[in-house]
Amino acid sequence: MAAAGEQRIAWIRTRMGMLANLRERFAAERPFEGVTIGLSLHVEPKTAVLVETLAAGGARIVGTGNHGSTQDDVVAALQERGMTIFGRRDDSIEEHHRNLARTIAERPQILLDNGADLAALAVREGLAESLIGGTEETTSGAFRLREEMDGEVPFPVIVINDSPLKAIGENRHAVGQSAVESFMRLTNVQVPGRRFVVAGYGWCGRGIAQYLRALGGRVSVAEIDEIAAYEAAFDGFRVAPLAELAGSADVIITATGRAGILTAEHLDLLQDGAILGNIGHFPWEIDVPALTAAGTVSAVTEEIDAITLPGDRTVYLLTGGRMYNLAGTAPRGNSIESMDVGFMMQALSLERIALQAANLPTGPQPVPDDINRHIARQTLTLLGSALA
Amino acid sequence: MAAAGEQRIAWIRTRMGMLANLRERFAAERPFEGVTIGLSLHVEPKTAVLVETLAAGGARIVGTGNHGSTQDDVVAALQERGMTIFGRRDDSIEEHHRNLARTIAERPQILLDNGADLAALAVREGLAESLIGGTEETTSGAFRLREEMDGEVPFPVIVINDSPLKAIGENRHAVGQSAVESFMRLTNVQVPGRRFVVAGYGWCGRGIAQYLRALGGRVSVAEIDEIAAYEAAFDGFRVAPLAELAGSADVIITATGRAGILTAEHLDLLQDGAILGNIGHFPWEIDVPALTAAGTVSAVTEEIDAITLPGDRTVYLLTGGRMYNLAGTAPRGNSIESMDVGFMMQALSLERIALQAANLPTGPQPVPDDINRHIARQTLTLLGSALA
Amino acid sequence: MAAAGEQRIAWIRTRMGMLANLRERFAAERPFEGVTIGLSLHVEPKTAVLVETLAAGGARIVGTGNHGSTQDDVVAALQERGMTIFGRRDDSIEEHHRNLARTIAERPQILLDNGADLAALAVREGLAESLIGGTEETTSGAFRLREEMDGEVPFPVIVINDSPLKAIGENRHAVGQSAVESFMRLTNVQVPGRRFVVAGYGWCGRGIAQYLRALGGRVSVAEIDEIAAYEAAFDGFRVAPLAELAGSADVIITATGRAGILTAEHLDLLQDGAILGNIGHFPWEIDVPALTAAGTVSAVTEEIDAITLPGDRTVYLLTGGRMYNLAGTAPRGNSIESMDVGFMMQALSLERIALQAANLPTGPQPVPDDINRHIARQTLTLLGSALA
Amino acid sequence: MAAAGEQRIAWIRTRMGMLANLRERFAAERPFEGVTIGLSLHVEPKTAVLVETLAAGGARIVGTGNHGSTQDDVVAALQERGMTIFGRRDDSIEEHHRNLARTIAERPQILLDNGADLAALAVREGLAESLIGGTEETTSGAFRLREEMDGEVPFPVIVINDSPLKAIGENRHAVGQSAVESFMRLTNVQVPGRRFVVAGYGWCGRGIAQYLRALGGRVSVAEIDEIAAYEAAFDGFRVAPLAELAGSADVIITATGRAGILTAEHLDLLQDGAILGNIGHFPWEIDVPALTAAGTVSAVTEEIDAITLPGDRTVYLLTGGRMYNLAGTAPRGNSIESMDVGFMMQALSLERIALQAANLPTGPQPVPDDINRHIARQTLTLLGSALA
Repeated sequence: MAAAGEQRIAWIRTRMGMLANLRERFAAERPFEGVTIGLSLHVEPKTAVLVETLAAGGARIVGTGNHGSTQDDVVAALQERGMTIFGRRDDSIEEHHRNLARTIAERPQILLDNGADLAALAVREGLAESLIGGTEETTSGAFRLREEMDGEVPFPVIVINDSPLKAIGENRHAVGQSAVESFMRLTNVQVPGRRFVVAGYGWCGRGIAQYLRALGGRVSVAEIDEIAAYEAAFDGFRVAPLAELAGSADVIITATGRAGILTAEHLDLLQDGAILGNIGHFPWEIDVPALTAAGTVSAVTEEIDAITLPGDRTVYLLTGGRMYNLAGTAPRGNSIESMDVGFMMQALSLERIALQAANLPTGPQPVPDDINRHIARQTLTLLGSALA
Repeated sequence: MAAAGEQRIAWIRTRMGMLANLRERFAAERPFEGVTIGLSLHVEPKTAVLVETLAAGGARIVGTGNHGSTQDDVVAALQERGMTIFGRRDDSIEEHHRNLARTIAERPQILLDNGADLAALAVREGLAESLIGGTEETTSGAFRLREEMDGEVPFPVIVINDSPLKAIGENRHAVGQSAVESFMRLTNVQVPGRRFVVAGYGWCGRGIAQYLRALGGRVSVAEIDEIAAYEAAFDGFRVAPLAELAGSADVIITATGRAGILTAEHLDLLQDGAILGNIGHFPWEIDVPALTAAGTVSAVTEEIDAITLPGDRTVYLLTGGRMYNLAGTAPRGNSIESMDVGFMMQALSLERIALQAANLPTGPQPVPDDINRHIARQTLTLLGSALA
Repeated sequence: MAAAGEQRIAWIRTRMGMLANLRERFAAERPFEGVTIGLSLHVEPKTAVLVETLAAGGARIVGTGNHGSTQDDVVAALQERGMTIFGRRDDSIEEHHRNLARTIAERPQILLDNGADLAALAVREGLAESLIGGTEETTSGAFRLREEMDGEVPFPVIVINDSPLKAIGENRHAVGQSAVESFMRLTNVQVPGRRFVVAGYGWCGRGIAQYLRALGGRVSVAEIDEIAAYEAAFDGFRVAPLAELAGSADVIITATGRAGILTAEHLDLLQDGAILGNIGHFPWEIDVPALTAAGTVSAVTEEIDAITLPGDRTVYLLTGGRMYNLAGTAPRGNSIESMDVGFMMQALSLERIALQAANLPTGPQPVPDDINRHIARQTLTLLGSALA
Repeated sequence: MAAAGEQRIAWIRTRMGMLANLRERFAAERPFEGVTIGLSLHVEPKTAVLVETLAAGGARIVGTGNHGSTQDDVVAALQERGMTIFGRRDDSIEEHHRNLARTIAERPQILLDNGADLAALAVREGLAESLIGGTEETTSGAFRLREEMDGEVPFPVIVINDSPLKAIGENRHAVGQSAVESFMRLTNVQVPGRRFVVAGYGWCGRGIAQYLRALGGRVSVAEIDEIAAYEAAFDGFRVAPLAELAGSADVIITATGRAGILTAEHLDLLQDGAILGNIGHFPWEIDVPALTAAGTVSAVTEEIDAITLPGDRTVYLLTGGRMYNLAGTAPRGNSIESMDVGFMMQALSLERIALQAANLPTGPQPVPDDINRHIARQTLTLLGSALA
C-alpha cells in the first residue's frame, strides 16, 4: 500500500516546484533540527509533499489526518519513511479524537493545525506553555482562535487563510478551475449554452461563476449581500433570488458558506433533469435530507444520485451534497500549483515560528508580508513572468 | 459484466433527450421493421444509446466495434439484449477483420459505417447490390468513398461528418470542452497563467485554443495555412512556428490531422516539465518513437509517461500520444449532448435511407438539409432557446 | 478644404502599413502605366489611401463617390493631386447618375466598382468590349453581376467581398469592434451588465454579439435560421424571438441584412429608455417610419433621437436607423488595419487585372487564392506573428 | 452658450435614473432648505446633473470648477438657473485660487470638495467652526485630510472614493470601458491581435487590461508590487518589466498613479508606430518632456502627436500624456451610469451631513454603509437584477 501512495505522490511532487527548491534549502539549513511538529491535516498526496519538506528540514513528524478524508495509502507511505502518523479513512469520530490526543501526547513544540483542534487541546491540557507556536490553515480555525479562545493562546499562530495569495490563487482561481473540471469529469455534460445558477458571490462564487461563463455557460447569480450582488451585476451576471432562477436552471451550484441555501421551498421549482452540486466547505448548503425526503433516491453513478420528485421530474445530486470538487472516488481537488503556493506559506511560516517565535506577537496573526511577497515572486517565475 | 455496462449506459441515456424522444417515435412507427443494420463503430456507453434507438425502430442489429476501443461490458450489455455484436477490447487486427467479415456475412441491408470498412468489404465481395444504403461517420471514410472508391458505390451513403452541426457543436465546442476537461483531469495542473501552444487552427484547434484561453491560459498557435493563421491572429492569438514557441511552452497540444508535427527537431527545445498531448485523430502527430528514443521513459501515472531527456530535462507525455480526451482508463470524451446531436444525425439519416433510399442519389452525400434543421431546432429547445 | 482632407488622410496613412509598402513597389514597377482606372466608391480618408496607391502605380484616376457618403474635403484633396473626382456630399441622385456617366465617358480601361454601377453602365452603353476588367467591392454588386447580368459581362470582375479574409477580419472582427466603439462613443452608456439583443447571427451579428459580451454585456440573439441559431446557442447566447426579448432589452441592434426586423409589432413591448441601433447595410431593418409615426420625435444629440411612445415610454434611435458605426458627424468606421486588408485585395486584384486579364476567366470571380495568402502572410507580420 | 450646455446635459440626465428619482424626493423633502453648499468640482454635463439635484433639495449653490477642466457652456447653463458658479476653462492658476476664495467668501455651510481645496482654505481662514460638514471626492484629498490636516478638521468629511461601489463600478469597470472606448475613438486602430502593455495592475489597471483582452488584445502587464503582479499572472497575463515589454509593444498604457513610468530609458526600445497613452490621474506617468526632447514633434490629429525618434521610428502620443479618456476635444469619460452611482454617493452623503452631522464623528470617514447598500440595491434594479 505504501508503494501505491508513493506513486501517487510522485506526479504531484514534480509539479510543486517551489516546495522542491525549499526542500533543498531545508536539507542544507535544517531549521527544524530537534523540533517535533504536530500535524492535523488532510492526509493526501499533496499534503504528503509538504510533510516530507518539513521532515527534510530536520523536523520529527507526528500527527493525524482529518476525520473522514484520510487516504490510507498515503498514511502508509509516510509511516514507511519513519513518521508517526495516526488515523485511517474509516476512523470513527471517537477514534479521531484519540488520534488528536495521541498527537499532543507526543509533545510537539510546533503545531500545523486545522480548525484549531490541536491548539484547543494543548490549551485545555495545560501544555500551551511548552509550545513555540504554530500555523492554522482554515478560516474556521482562525475564528475559533479569535473568538472562542480570545487571549488564551500564549504562542504565535500564523493564519494561512488570511493571505491575499490564498484568496486570489486558491479561492478564486483554483476553486474556479476545479469547479468546472469536476463538474465536467463527474457529469460529462455540455457546458456551453447551459444555464447555471451560482449561489454566493464571495471569492469562491466569483471564481466558479467566471470559469463557468468562460466555458460558454449562461450563468446567473443568487446573492443576499448588496455589495457582492452589485459586483456580480457589474461583472455582467444576472442577479436574482434563487427562487426566481431555480425554475430555469440546468445546474445549481452553492458556494455561500452558509446552511440551508437550496431548501425544500425550491424543490417544486426545479425542472426535470436539473443537476445540483455544492462547493461550499460544509455539506449543508443543499438541504439533502429535505431533498431525499421529497422523492425517491437511486444511485446512477458512484458520484451521482437521481432523485425522482413529484411531477415526473428527476433531479441529480452530485456527491451527496459534499464539496463535489473534493469528494467522490478520485477527486482532483485544487490544482497542484495552487497548493504549492499554500504549502509554501505553511512551510515558511513554520520556519519563521521555529527560528523567530520570540520576535512575533502571541495569538493569531497573518502570514508575514515578506513571506507573501517572496512566494509571489517565485510563483511569477514559475509562470514565466517577472516583476518590473 | 452486462450489468456494469447497463449502469454506465443509464446516466448517458438520461442526458440524451433527443434520442429519448426519437426512441418513442421509432417504437411507434418501426421504420426499420424487417431490416438488418450492420454496424462498425466505437462500442461505448454513448453509442449503445444510439444502437438501442435503432433497435427500438425495429432493426435487427449486427456489428462490430472498432479496433482497440471496444468496451467489453457494453458489448455484454448489448448482447444480453439479443443483438449480435462482435469484438473485444483485446482483439488483434486479424480478429477485427474477421469481425467485419462476420458482420457482412449477416447480410445487412443498411450500413452504419466508420472509415468505410463495411462499405469497402461489401463492394469487394460483390454484395453491394443488395444494400439499400448507409451512413459514414468519419472524414477519412468519406475521403475513401470519394477518392479510392469513386463511382463504385451503387447505394447512397450519407456522410455525417460533413454537417455544419457537427463542425460547430462537436468539432469546435465539444472537443474544446473535452480538451480542457481531460487536461485538467489527467494532470491536475493549473491552467490560468500557463503557456500553452496549440498546433493546428482547424475546427478542433480553434475550439481547444479558445477554451484554454477562456480558462486563463496564455495560448499561442502554430499553423502552416495562411488563412487559418490569419484567423488565429485576428482571434487574438500569437501565431508562430512551433520551433519558436516550443522553448517557452508549458504544454503543447497537437490538433492538425497530420503526422510529424512535434518531432525530433523540437526535442532539444523543450523546457523541463513540459507536458505534451495530442487531440488529433491519429496518434502520429507527436513523433513518440523519436521522443522515447531520445530519453528514458517511465510511467508516473496510468496516463502520463515521464521522458527524461538530455540536459536534465523531463517532459511528460499524455496517453502515449493517442487522443488524450478519448484514451486512458476512464475517458469522458465529448459531452453527452454533443453526441446526442451526432447520433440524431445518424438515426434520422438511417431512417431516411430505410424509407426513401430510392429518392436519394447513389454514393456519398451530405446529411439532408431538413434533418440538420430539424435537429438544430430540437437542440435549441433543450438549451432553453427558440428560433425567432 | 484640401488641406483639411490631407490632414485627415495623414493619420490613416501611417497605420496602413501594407498599402505603404505596396506604394513603393507600385512606384517602382508602374503596373498601371498608361491605364485609366474608373472608380465608384465611398470617398473618405481610408479610400483616399487606396486611390493614391493606385496612382503611384501609374494609373490615371477618374471616378465618383457613392451617393450620400462623399466627404468633400477628401474630394478636394484628391482633385488637388490632379485626379478627376466627381461628386459632392449633397448631390441629388440625378447628379450622382451624371457622375457615373461622366466617369464612364472618360473611357477607363479598368473599373473599381461598387454595386456594379459602372459595369452595368458600361455594358448598357456598349463600352464593355474596351474594358480589360475590374473589381467589385460589395455582395450586392456581385449578386447583380451574377444574376441580373449573368453572361453579359465580357471581362473579368474580381469580387472582393467573397474573400475569407474579409469575412474574418472585416465582417466579424472589425464590425464587432466598431459596433461596440460606436455604441459607447455615441451614447456613453455602460456596457457591463446591460441587456443587449442582437438580431441576426451572420458574420456581422456574430462579431457584434461576441464583442458586446466580451465587454460584460448580457447578450441575447434573435435569429430565424436554424443553423445560425444553433451556433449562437452553442456559443453561449440565449436565442429567442425578438418579440420575446424586446420587453427586457436595454439595447436592440439589428444586423440581419433584411428589411423590417424591428417593426410596429414590437413598439408596444419596448421598455422605457431602450436604445435602438442598426448595423446592417440598409437603413430599413428598423422600421423608422412606423417608429416615428407612433410617437413624438425630438433630437437629444446630433446622432440620437428621442421618441416618446404611448405609456410614458421614451426610446432612443441611433443615427436615424442608418448604420450607426458609419453614420453621424464623425464616424470612425471599421479599424484602419481591417481596411488595409480590404484595400490590399483591391489593389492587388486590380494589378492582376492590369497585367494578366487575358489569363483570367470573364465574369465575376473570387479574389485569386495567392493574393489572399500573400495578404494573410503580411497581416501576420504586422500583428507580430508568423506562419509555422 | 447656456443653450448648448443644456442640450449636452439633457441626454446625460435621461440615463441617470437614480439621481432622477432622488431629485423628486429632494424636491418634496427639501433636505438642504436654507443651506448653502460650496462646490469645487469638474464642471461638465454629468456634474451638472448632480448640482441640479442638490438645488432641487433646497440648497443654494456656490462654487467653482477645477483648474483646466471647466466647460464654459455648462457654467453658463448653471448660472442661467441662478447658481453662483465661478471659473472658466482658460483661468490661470491664480484666477482659480481666487475662485476658491470667492466660494468660501459666500460662507457655505456644507462643502462638496475635490482635493480638499475648500476644506484647507476654510481651516486656514478660521471659518471651519461655522461648517456643518462636507464630502471629499478624491483619494488625494482624503490623503491631505488624513495626513497634512490630521486632527485639524472639526467637522465630518465623508470620503467618496473609499467606497467599494466606486472601486468596482468606476475604477475597474467604468475606467476599463472608457479606456478601450477612448483608445478606439481616438485612433481607429484595430484591437484584436494587437500587443498592448498596461503598466500598473491596481483597480484601474486591472480594468484596462481585462477590457483590452476581452476585445482580443494581446495584453502584458508591468507591475512592481509582488501581490498585484501575482494577481495579474493568475489572471492570465504575462507580467514583465516594462523595459522587457516595450520593444514589442504596439500600444503602451500607463495606469500606476506614480510619476516617471515610461521614461527616457525606454525610448530606444520603442518600435516604429508604437502608441503611448496614459490613464493615470496625473500627466507625469509618461515623461513627456523627455519624449519630446528626444525627437521631432508634430500633430497628426487634434489628440495625437507624432514624435519622430532616432532610428527612423515614429511613435504617437495620445492627448499629450494627460488621461486620454478624459482629455481632448470631445471626451466621453466614464459611463453615465457609473457616475450616477458616484453622484448618488455624493448626494446622499451631503444629505446625511445636512440632517445628521451631529451624529457623525468629525474628520474624514467612509461613506456610511447603509448609503452604499441602498445605492447598490438601486443599481441592481436598473440593471434588471435583484437581491436574493
